Amino acid sequence: MLPRGRPRALGAAALLLLLLLLGFLLFGGDLGCERREPGGRAGAPGCFPGPLMPRVPPDGRLRRAAALDGDPGAGPGDHNRSDCGPQPPPPPKCEPQVSWIPNKHYSGLYGLMKLVLPSALPAELARVIVLDTDVTFASDISELWALFAHFSDTQAIGLVENQSDWYLGNLWKNHRPWPALGRGFNTGVILLRLDRLRQAGWEQMWRLTARRELLSLPATSLADQDIFNAVIKEHPGLVQRLPCVWNVQLSDHTLAERCYSEASDLKVIHWNSPKKLRVKNKHVEFFRNFYLTFLEYDGNLLRRELFVCPSQPPPGAEQALAQLDEEDPCFEFRQQQLTVHRVHVTFLPHEPPPPRPHDVTLVAQLSMDRLQMLEALCRHWPGPMSLALYLTDAEAQQFLHFVEASPVLAARQDVAYHVVYREGPLYPVNQLRNVALAQALTPYVFLSDIDFLPAYSLYDYLRASIEQLGLGSRRKAALVVPAFETLRYRFSFPHSKVELLALLDAGTLYTFRYHEWPRGHAPTDYARWREAQAPYRVQWAANYEPYVVVPRDCPRYDPRFVGFGWNKVAHIVELDAQEYELLVLPEAFTIHLPHAPSLDISRFRSSPTYRDCLQALKDEFHQDLSRHHGAAALKYLPALQQPQSPARG
Amino acid sequence: MLPRGRPRALGAAALLLLLLLLGFLLFGGDLGCERREPGGRAGAPGCFPGPLMPRVPPDGRLRRAAALDGDPGAGPGDHNRSDCGPQPPPPPKCEPQVSWIPNKHYSGLYGLMKLVLPSALPAELARVIVLDTDVTFASDISELWALFAHFSDTQAIGLVENQSDWYLGNLWKNHRPWPALGRGFNTGVILLRLDRLRQAGWEQMWRLTARRELLSLPATSLADQDIFNAVIKEHPGLVQRLPCVWNVQLSDHTLAERCYSEASDLKVIHWNSPKKLRVKNKHVEFFRNFYLTFLEYDGNLLRRELFVCPSQPPPGAEQALAQLDEEDPCFEFRQQQLTVHRVHVTFLPHEPPPPRPHDVTLVAQLSMDRLQMLEALCRHWPGPMSLALYLTDAEAQQFLHFVEASPVLAARQDVAYHVVYREGPLYPVNQLRNVALAQALTPYVFLSDIDFLPAYSLYDYLRASIEQLGLGSRRKAALVVPAFETLRYRFSFPHSKVELLALLDAGTLYTFRYHEWPRGHAPTDYARWREAQAPYRVQWAANYEPYVVVPRDCPRYDPRFVGFGWNKVAHIVELDAQEYELLVLPEAFTIHLPHAPSLDISRFRSSPTYRDCLQALKDEFHQDLSRHHGAAALKYLPALQQPQSPARG
Repeated sequence: MLPRGRPRALGAAALLLLLLLLGFLLFGGDLGCERREPGGRAGAPGCFPGPLMPRVPPDGRLRRAAALDGDPGAGPGDHNRSDCGPQPPPPPKCEPQVSWIPNKHYSGLYGLMKLVLPSALPAELARVIVLDTDVTFASDISELWALFAHFSDTQAIGLVENQSDWYLGNLWKNHRPWPALGRGFNTGVILLRLDRLRQAGWEQMWRLTARRELLSLPATSLADQDIFNAVIKEHPGLVQRLPCVWNVQLSDHTLAERCYSEASDLKVIHWNSPKKLRVKNKHVEFFRNFYLTFLEYDGNLLRRELFVCPSQPPPGAEQALAQLDEEDPCFEFRQQQLTVHRVHVTFLPHEPPPPRPHDVTLVAQLSMDRLQMLEALCRHWPGPMSLALYLTDAEAQQFLHFVEASPVLAARQDVAYHVVYREGPLYPVNQLRNVALAQALTPYVFLSDIDFLPAYSLYDYLRASIEQLGLGSRRKAALVVPAFETLRYRFSFPHSKVELLALLDAGTLYTFRYHEWPRGHAPTDYARWREAQAPYRVQWAANYEPYVVVPRDCPRYDPRFVGFGWNKVAHIVELDAQEYELLVLPEAFTIHLPHAPSLDISRFRSSPTYRDCLQALKDEFHQDLSRHHGAAALKYLPALQQPQSPARG
Repeated sequence: MLPRGRPRALGAAALLLLLLLLGFLLFGGDLGCERREPGGRAGAPGCFPGPLMPRVPPDGRLRRAAALDGDPGAGPGDHNRSDCGPQPPPPPKCEPQVSWIPNKHYSGLYGLMKLVLPSALPAELARVIVLDTDVTFASDISELWALFAHFSDTQAIGLVENQSDWYLGNLWKNHRPWPALGRGFNTGVILLRLDRLRQAGWEQMWRLTARRELLSLPATSLADQDIFNAVIKEHPGLVQRLPCVWNVQLSDHTLAERCYSEASDLKVIHWNSPKKLRVKNKHVEFFRNFYLTFLEYDGNLLRRELFVCPSQPPPGAEQALAQLDEEDPCFEFRQQQLTVHRVHVTFLPHEPPPPRPHDVTLVAQLSMDRLQMLEALCRHWPGPMSLALYLTDAEAQQFLHFVEASPVLAARQDVAYHVVYREGPLYPVNQLRNVALAQALTPYVFLSDIDFLPAYSLYDYLRASIEQLGLGSRRKAALVVPAFETLRYRFSFPHSKVELLALLDAGTLYTFRYHEWPRGHAPTDYARWREAQAPYRVQWAANYEPYVVVPRDCPRYDPRFVGFGWNKVAHIVELDAQEYELLVLPEAFTIHLPHAPSLDISRFRSSPTYRDCLQALKDEFHQDLSRHHGAAALKYLPALQQPQSPARG
């Protein structure tokens, strides 16, 4: 698993550090032991490409769900896969091996799990670096790895001294810490010779020590660190002291300042106060800037491998990207289609909805300029939502603060936010929709747009309709939710169809795009809808793009449509080609709110090249349609040759 | 000027590099020689804190106006000052010394000016590093400085070999380059021993050589570099060869790849192709990422000096910031008020308006979410504008691309954009207004807000009114522009007062904040305005916040009002306290367009603490008012004790 010499397993991290020499902080992931979040929910087992063993971060500000870099359209069942090759069978749970230890530390079980690494990790793995998740690297991690070379033949654990007086036992009256050598050691950064620990009977060793100490002490105060120190006190020959700069500890009463005199001395900063970034420290601004530098750094800039791994051919998409012709007028479209975005599924804690046979998830996508829609949407849709957000790394941090500051949003655990990191010149609208769609966990999905607010009753009404229509048995149905729009800034949202019709008659509401593009929703037949008491079937027609409720396994959106235009229309064509029945619901409605045009759309609306490129995309789309559906696809040819509406969005 | 040993003058740059080990690119500035932009406009002489001599960058994408770090409210006359201490008298112009040299290189005169450094720089300055502005540092600049130590007793110029075959003279038939030693040297990075060059008679030496070569060659092709090479060919003892990694040249047919094998080898990347970032190169993605890393880096993170300069006390504001109590409920307000923002005045090329006695500049401020207002504003206001933009470093790049992509914006040279870099939790609305106001260059200013569109005729009408009213003699006048609003998304803007009144009667338009806060504009007396044929005087009343046209030297906005609330009201109070006459113009109007609430406002609107802190600010404001205006300030006390309107923005 780990080659000898310069550890290739460190490649990714080392590259990052070599190239940019930026600090970095590790989040999430574990080593195959099933992980549970404090709330009791099972997390996704991650896969770490090297000897990194992060602890579940103890502070809400630092905690994140696991990140996924790869196919943005991966299904919900796929989202734990990684690029580490074939997955071994799941190993046994590690918790029971440490859960018997009474522990007062805020890290809970997770810190203690470091103790079982020698037995939990594969027998052929000889050395690992173990890191807490609250550390920030200010240097090349390979320098740390190189310190293994200083171990004597019997040393097995490399540690930095604890930078506080805790283990001296004189902090307060009756302060009784666990035994330690002098100030003891901090276990936020550990070099572990697993082979030697196994040989030395580590498994027995720490258990014996822990049991014996727990006869006179009620619990560990500092989790694994207390036990490591007690073992080392008995077996001092095991430990190799590491230079203090490899674990500069920012605890509340730290002595760390003795350790560094220049910024360049710092190698690893350890935020080991429970206050994390809010800790008081003479140099905290400096340390915080280090951390923020990484947090807000455009992660796309880290994706190029160049000098370190010359033997590995780039993946297919990258190769295709490199072969694009920059002079092609549609270059930006091609480039955007081929871009594989970094995707962070369930960016914030999320409670999956309980399995219910007729449940519906609202699916939508947005960028920063529509963030203010989220609160209203939460008020209108009390059910589960799966939202893809197209953000820069820095915007993702702003989004986090926005949710934290909003009681409405913070209260909702059934809204899953998936961050797709911005890369490339065009808005990848259908890729975003596919990310949100793939992460929906209910049997049905309502495919909406972020600037629409559904009727307050829509969530309940849709579930009742799905049940009444017995859609479970006739799956190929798309329920149409008629769309309206208001042009008014201040607007009193109708509480019923009756109220809606009154507003429509008063000219306060219109059917959606009534003025510029009535064809987009004409087949919905608003006149019939006014009178309808029961769902009615409608036929597809050119340019139809209704908002629909469909089974979760519906066709995906065509990711070739980037920017603006034809993205929804193509999806409805595909539904029709696959013989989905279109049923308009008589009591359902959703209303588009006015907003300033997005920057993305204004950039391209006026471009003649844009129209030409869009037509090229439509031609390719039709070729694929013909390939899949044969002569039946002929039906769509006239629609695909019609010009695009002048003001789409 | 430069101390011996480790050059302290490099402190800032070295700190930057030591701490972050990030690449960096230098923009703008020169050494006291008056600089003119290619368009013939005089640039602002900068002040560089060290031996850095950038060349005016030749590429539009890279070129910026000089950055200013300091008091955001500094007047237009002040904006060239810096923190380098007392300014010496302006030195003589350098251009005449090199303008006689015929030159075909795209850098124009500016490259050639490197030749006069030994005479132009102070006689006590012995060594400098000379850098082109199109270089990116990937390492600590002090390592480069250290290479002076390798100079022999007679060497005076440190250079990297030219990484192309240009000087070999075999690129095409009849290619006749200037003479050079072998491949010659590249002058993008130079270590200069000024003392030795002066002693060796450099001034004579390069002139003689240049004159002689120009007898047989028509012009320099590569500017200063041709002349340096010709001199070195005659006096090879002058040159110290530097390792090639200190000037990795990305010209179109570069041989630079021979120079590096690992990313960590790279020290300085030189974008010396006229294509700059668009150059074709096997590793260009890697190099571009280096550049973008710096460009989009949050510059605020570079502002903390910590380890390198421990002896210097922090400036007043920083000290006050450090002394703030984080537990104070109004901490964020205090913090925001004390924050000294980085400000980049005239971020984009700007043509100052010709001096006209009645001219008016529109003054406003905005953040990213109002960028789409700019085009409409340009269509409504054909005169000069001074706009402050509150952006992150990354957003400033997006803004640049936005302007480049907009024919409407790109065509306007009379709009000055001033970037104030985001820092802190609250929107510093009045600090932004003061930045824009301070940079207005006409005798009058129209103090507007970004979500208002003025009447198409307003610019002409205001100038005519100022002239007719003879305001030159009675300066303490504020001309009120009555404000209206539409709640409609799509809206046909009235072309006259008659059309406006019709829309008002039809209920399509309202007087501004008619529904929520009529007091803000009540004194304007809209009923009288309907009928008015001539300007009429109105009296100040509590909460009055009209949009006004005032002389440029009007009172500044009170920067203590950060976030939302009381920021304009306080300014009108100050105008009234200073006995400005309020005159409503009968044909003037401006209309507020609907927009989604900004993120900033929604964050604070619901907070009870916010109201308490705002009241505290108002109390302090009144104390200052009493201090300046004595008993006359009593008039404003009741207004200051009224509660804030519920929905301000």
